[in-house]
Amino acid sequence: MEISRHQFAQKLSSVEKAIKECDVIAIDTELSGLHRPNTPVRLYSMKDRYIEYKEATERFLIIQFGMCTFKWDEPSGRYIAKPFNFYIFPTSITGQVQTNRVFMTQAQAFDFLVKQSFDFNKWVYQGIPYMTREEEKIYVAQAQKRLNDDMPDIPIDDKEAEFMKNARAKIDEWVATEKPDDPEGVNINAKNAYQRRLIYQEIRKYEGLTAIGMQGFIRAQKFTQKQEEERTKEKLEKFEKDLTTAIGFRKVIDMISDSGKTVVGHNMLLDVCHMIGQFVEPLPDTLTDFKSLAHRLFPSMIDTKNMCISEPELQTIFGTSTALEQLRFETSKNIFSNPRIDMHPEFPRYITDMAHEAGYDAYMTGAAFLKLTSFLDKSRNPEKYPDVEEEEKVEEEPKAKKTDADGWDISDHEEDNEWNLEEEEVYNYGSTRVDLINANGSMDNVLKNVNNKVAIVRTAYDYFDFVSPEVITPQSNVIRVSYPSGTEFTKETASRLFSKYGKHIVEPNDDMSSYVVFENLKENIQDVENFIIEPVSKHLE
Amino acid sequence: MEISRHQFAQKLSSVEKAIKECDVIAIDTELSGLHRPNTPVRLYSMKDRYIEYKEATERFLIIQFGMCTFKWDEPSGRYIAKPFNFYIFPTSITGQVQTNRVFMTQAQAFDFLVKQSFDFNKWVYQGIPYMTREEEKIYVAQAQKRLNDDMPDIPIDDKEAEFMKNARAKIDEWVATEKPDDPEGVNINAKNAYQRRLIYQEIRKYEGLTAIGMQGFIRAQKFTQKQEEERTKEKLEKFEKDLTTAIGFRKVIDMISDSGKTVVGHNMLLDVCHMIGQFVEPLPDTLTDFKSLAHRLFPSMIDTKNMCISEPELQTIFGTSTALEQLRFETSKNIFSNPRIDMHPEFPRYITDMAHEAGYDAYMTGAAFLKLTSFLDKSRNPEKYPDVEEEEKVEEEPKAKKTDADGWDISDHEEDNEWNLEEEEVYNYGSTRVDLINANGSMDNVLKNVNNKVAIVRTAYDYFDFVSPEVITPQSNVIRVSYPSGTEFTKETASRLFSKYGKHIVEPNDDMSSYVVFENLKENIQDVENFIIEPVSKHLE
Repeated sequence: MEISRHQFAQKLSSVEKAIKECDVIAIDTELSGLHRPNTPVRLYSMKDRYIEYKEATERFLIIQFGMCTFKWDEPSGRYIAKPFNFYIFPTSITGQVQTNRVFMTQAQAFDFLVKQSFDFNKWVYQGIPYMTREEEKIYVAQAQKRLNDDMPDIPIDDKEAEFMKNARAKIDEWVATEKPDDPEGVNINAKNAYQRRLIYQEIRKYEGLTAIGMQGFIRAQKFTQKQEEERTKEKLEKFEKDLTTAIGFRKVIDMISDSGKTVVGHNMLLDVCHMIGQFVEPLPDTLTDFKSLAHRLFPSMIDTKNMCISEPELQTIFGTSTALEQLRFETSKNIFSNPRIDMHPEFPRYITDMAHEAGYDAYMTGAAFLKLTSFLDKSRNPEKYPDVEEEEKVEEEPKAKKTDADGWDISDHEEDNEWNLEEEEVYNYGSTRVDLINANGSMDNVLKNVNNKVAIVRTAYDYFDFVSPEVITPQSNVIRVSYPSGTEFTKETASRLFSKYGKHIVEPNDDMSSYVVFENLKENIQDVENFIIEPVSKHLE
Repeated sequence: MEISRHQFAQKLSSVEKAIKECDVIAIDTELSGLHRPNTPVRLYSMKDRYIEYKEATERFLIIQFGMCTFKWDEPSGRYIAKPFNFYIFPTSITGQVQTNRVFMTQAQAFDFLVKQSFDFNKWVYQGIPYMTREEEKIYVAQAQKRLNDDMPDIPIDDKEAEFMKNARAKIDEWVATEKPDDPEGVNINAKNAYQRRLIYQEIRKYEGLTAIGMQGFIRAQKFTQKQEEERTKEKLEKFEKDLTTAIGFRKVIDMISDSGKTVVGHNMLLDVCHMIGQFVEPLPDTLTDFKSLAHRLFPSMIDTKNMCISEPELQTIFGTSTALEQLRFETSKNIFSNPRIDMHPEFPRYITDMAHEAGYDAYMTGAAFLKLTSFLDKSRNPEKYPDVEEEEKVEEEPKAKKTDADGWDISDHEEDNEWNLEEEEVYNYGSTRVDLINANGSMDNVLKNVNNKVAIVRTAYDYFDFVSPEVITPQSNVIRVSYPSGTEFTKETASRLFSKYGKHIVEPNDDMSSYVVFENLKENIQDVENFIIEPVSKHLE
């Protein structure tokens, strides 16, 4: 389902329903740019890499957001997917705090989107606006001031002195005629926003007079108490409506966060950074604060790329080819036939492929996630899958098997099926539900090792972990340096000791050791170790 | 005429012809953004204002460029307009030095363009790329290196050691078999750009072997001298073609500049800054250098907004309403009927209005310029317009007058008319050519006062002058401070003396005086003058 600016308010309840009912949420984004011109650096410390992500988040924008929810449907024995595609554009015409948003665009990123037939007109003309939580606070405070007529006076320009003199004379004259209930009031023409503002603050000075903005003029009027109350109510209603429009797409991010459900992405760290930085609040300065903020907002995140890299059974299949396209290709094979996943009938947009549209990529990611998880579970807990063989055959020719004489299966679970109120027969695809969360709400299943870990490259670490410290796998370019507890092992010390062996970074391990990771170690690691491992504490001043 | 990326090379000769044949060139731009979030500053020194323009030029891009040429056509007694509209996008797919261009977008600017039905898909999909002169130099130098096989070796990654060993073995084996004229050569598969680069540098090490890039592999081959020459020729031709594509739209700016013809714009200072900064070279650091660079590139510039502001006859008509829309409205009236301007028949895009498309706005600007100039000339030199009255009547009912019995006028100047080769009869609209340049090539006519001056607001000056010092009109908020020659009258000194009178700026006048201009002077200027004018040199330390 593609949701435009004009449909957003109306379609929000469908989004809410999908999030509330689902088992898992997959996301994907398209960005206005990824990073500054490429640098030759191939290895960063995790902190520096985070700074890079933070800077990219401040510069570039999510211009398309894809979300796909997956809900297990017991009667039909399959998952039902609801993919949503949102264009996002920070238009100022819907009212916002920062009326003059400036963002960066990377020409190369747009060139990439051209290959995917991205619709830039839909983006600018129909993209949904948004406001962060902080911006909302300011917006509300400003609106409150306006509602309470609590605006500071602005100075009157020389050029407008004559205009104001005439305006005052006109109001004074009208007041002097003593027609307090005159429903017409007195109209003061105003040519521009500045003159309007001046007239508002002038009328405020007259006890009992109310200013009403009209097209091209301001009307000063005397209101009864009832009129005043009605006007206040109208103003409040308008304010609420404007606020909802201005908060815009952040509402969806809030709903995802509030649901506490598992959010799945593919190579999702940058997506998560943008989701937070663009819609919730600016990214924190430190990596630690970022991790805890992200975990608080999205308590369970799983990255399909990280799954393929870190789970041995999947590594065997995918090797180093872990792009989303590859996942899509591999998981279409027979060994990944469980579970069956179909689009909800009201979400027909992706009946045919639309690779690289965010909504479709979110769908692909979520579908791959369910299939990878099921595959891992089947490998590790074969007893839970008694008729694997049969099932796979079923998948090949679904209509030839597991059906009754008429070619339809009558479900055992009709009472659960919301589409089945009229006692329709429902075909059951007989796939097995994926074990996402166990009875006590935690993920002590096959997902235990991948929960809250996401893929990251150009660092020494195997992955990025939102909850626990990351791990560095011992490799030929990694040495661990030990020293007495309390010693400070700085980048400078490392540079003094190791710069002769080439470019390297330092990552803290524990109180008494750090990793030194070389970008391209020319010597045999043993030679380096012989040189430094023993006497390293001696080298530290 | 709208010119897309794919038509650009082919249509360039039409652009060149239009520029070469025309009397005057009008321009207009649409930008990806104008400036940072608005500041409350209402008065800048000229230097600070230039810095603002320079920064805007570095941040934002021209995304649409409009050019309209006007050529006097004697046989038909009118100007013929050729409007061109170019979308500009710095795509990287056509090859460029800076493969990763990043630029800024102001959401509000896009919102404005939405109101004008700007086509963002045409912009990204069909926008013409460009390269500055400096980028061209680097591009050529790099290409030269590649053509001469003069690239530095890059280090071989550990991961590729095996790959390279195998590649070397394969080449060695082929060389050892002694088939120097084997037209097939030996193919080395390469999975990515890095492997390709390694193979190229490897083959270079073999005397007499040539590397040829193919889809997915590199071929090492022995070439005869003739083959080698052909290959070099092919490479050169490809290089020339790629270079033309990469230079792209800058060619048009070069042609405008090389023509030396008068360039007309409306409120054009920012347009000129972007034309230079984006397509020619980065804007200089100082205002003085900018002026001389701009004047060298465009030796005659006229701003229609500045004309309306500074010429008394026009000021009477336009007052403070000098927006392009207003010019268009006013110049459609009878007093501006001369000269007659028609679109060239091959340029039908703007037969109906398309306000705010750059090509159309350029047309509007140029048309207004010709009409304003003619109006001024007629007011000041009525003797040159003997039958003004008659002409105006003609304009109202052109077909009823000045025609022969058949309703057609036979021109006196048939020999000049390029459309008239077949002795066709040409209708003469009888309008008067505008006096742009006199016999000795200079503008000592009604344009003398406006040539090379452009409109500028939020400064103390009446206009911005590319050639001479600007003038400040004495006003109630301006005082001139005199001091002995050689005294340094700094911003700090001014602040110490005048800060009690409110915000102000200082602009140098001559060696012995400066202007102090107040944003909003509250006291009577006389009081300030009495206080400071006499003893000011005493106040200067």
